[in-house]
Amino acid sequence: MNIALDMMGGDYAPVETVKGVEEFFTGGSKDVNLLLIGDESQVTPLLPPTLGSNKHVKVVHAPEVIGMHEHPTKALKEKQKSSISIGFHLLSTGKCDAFISAGNTGAMLVGALYSIKAINGVTRPTISTVIPKDNGGTGLLLDVGLNADCKPENLNQFALLGSLYAKHINGVDNPRVALINIGEEEGKGNLLAQAAYPMLKENTAINFIGNVEGRDIFKDKADVMVCEGFTGNIILKLAESIFDITQEKNITHDYLERFNFENYGGTPVLGVSKPVIIGHGISHAKAFANMIRLAEKMIESDLMGKMANAFE
Amino acid sequence: MNIALDMMGGDYAPVETVKGVEEFFTGGSKDVNLLLIGDESQVTPLLPPTLGSNKHVKVVHAPEVIGMHEHPTKALKEKQKSSISIGFHLLSTGKCDAFISAGNTGAMLVGALYSIKAINGVTRPTISTVIPKDNGGTGLLLDVGLNADCKPENLNQFALLGSLYAKHINGVDNPRVALINIGEEEGKGNLLAQAAYPMLKENTAINFIGNVEGRDIFKDKADVMVCEGFTGNIILKLAESIFDITQEKNITHDYLERFNFENYGGTPVLGVSKPVIIGHGISHAKAFANMIRLAEKMIESDLMGKMANAFE
Repeated sequence: MNIALDMMGGDYAPVETVKGVEEFFTGGSKDVNLLLIGDESQVTPLLPPTLGSNKHVKVVHAPEVIGMHEHPTKALKEKQKSSISIGFHLLSTGKCDAFISAGNTGAMLVGALYSIKAINGVTRPTISTVIPKDNGGTGLLLDVGLNADCKPENLNQFALLGSLYAKHINGVDNPRVALINIGEEEGKGNLLAQAAYPMLKENTAINFIGNVEGRDIFKDKADVMVCEGFTGNIILKLAESIFDITQEKNITHDYLERFNFENYGGTPVLGVSKPVIIGHGISHAKAFANMIRLAEKMIESDLMGKMANAFE
Repeated sequence: MNIALDMMGGDYAPVETVKGVEEFFTGGSKDVNLLLIGDESQVTPLLPPTLGSNKHVKVVHAPEVIGMHEHPTKALKEKQKSSISIGFHLLSTGKCDAFISAGNTGAMLVGALYSIKAINGVTRPTISTVIPKDNGGTGLLLDVGLNADCKPENLNQFALLGSLYAKHINGVDNPRVALINIGEEEGKGNLLAQAAYPMLKENTAINFIGNVEGRDIFKDKADVMVCEGFTGNIILKLAESIFDITQEKNITHDYLERFNFENYGGTPVLGVSKPVIIGHGISHAKAFANMIRLAEKMIESDLMGKMANAFE
């Protein structure tokens, strides 16, 4: 399998992207060929001999970079030789099987939605995050910001996409799916949650267990939690800030360490036909290595094919 | 001033309500007369001699109690001799200046909205919570669940109500008001946030500083943060769970202790014409004492009068 990685994306690129690639191969892998997309004059000199001579590693020259604050659509159109544009070109033409970048999030989303396309039947692709649970496990939360306004049927689709991800990537058998809400019983919540509940309840393709409240999000109540992207994004960034604040205050504990989102790598775009993973701007080596591992798992399990079948 | 307290409300009532009253008077107060509403046969025997002989304390007999899971409107109608019904009767007839209960939240809200009425011009009264900031300060978050679906003008009114509360109760001069959102710039967010932003910007009665994101909520960015009650309720309950989880795991630190919501007592209903404070079901003595202190402050500062003036 061929996985393309944007070497120029992220605040610490390309130094940390190179280190991430090194970390990935140190972990041992035979099946993965990595396409390192970036400015050859910057990337190649950074490669240690083990990578430089590795036949599974190939640098793909990209003379341009889309900056973190550039306008996504405009930048993709004008910088066709940027690492992100080239990555999507390789992915859409089948020259790679997955594309990873910690660069401009907007450009990654626009690229995923318009150059890769949604799975037939999926009206709104979505992005998710891993939520560390108090019992040591993890849960999946989606949407976390791609869809700020949603219809009930969008939440119902997120539930199925998240359920398949939890099953095939996280290895959870019959994942418990819950609706994020402000009360326990059916009928509670805002208009969206009230309308989504019966749809989720009737969806036989998922194991819907009802509502979960804010207090349940970090607890082992559900494996997949769905909401619109406004609430989800607030939860995601708030959870990230818990790690930052406790680090600053030197409050250390294994549980808090699990709020370090580098542990989980990046966010896959779910509902598109090929694996696209978006990294956090502040990704270091560990996050990049984890994103490559995630891409490998998504390809190996044929997650996108299974999602396409589920929406047929 | 006369403050009425529901002695039967809350999971640990009336033992903890009595202890809370004791704690309040131990702190020293000359101006407050407390009306203890509850079943005389249960409350009176619990009163220690210092309270039994205190001329500022009077037990008001209420033979009925509205249970935590009773239907609010139905219970208020059928149990007119319940502590909550009697409390609102005393408040609406001017026999007390504030009413506090940690009992059935729904019944407290229905009572506040229908027996006390909204301030002229306020279309949707709101409930708020205190948010502990990483620098030792606190912020006010509203709405936290009374209004699950909002219009932009509701958020604009919450901003003014919260601003007056922050000024007169928390003593913040020219409080910084922010909109909870999923991006920094104007134009970001869901349809509600996009429409609320320009209204807040043009509101000369508040000091609007723009958007804050999930990562900013626990930081010292704003003194007042507004959102609809769905997102606000998720944030509130999630913040409460941080305290619970860290307690369970014996992760102790001054900062985490500040997530103990008993420190702040209860939630005042803002936008109604008289002080009504709703306590958490799990309130102990400390929370009750703090709620009485808050009621005292709300009366002393004539917060409701100032709110009425602002909406004239």
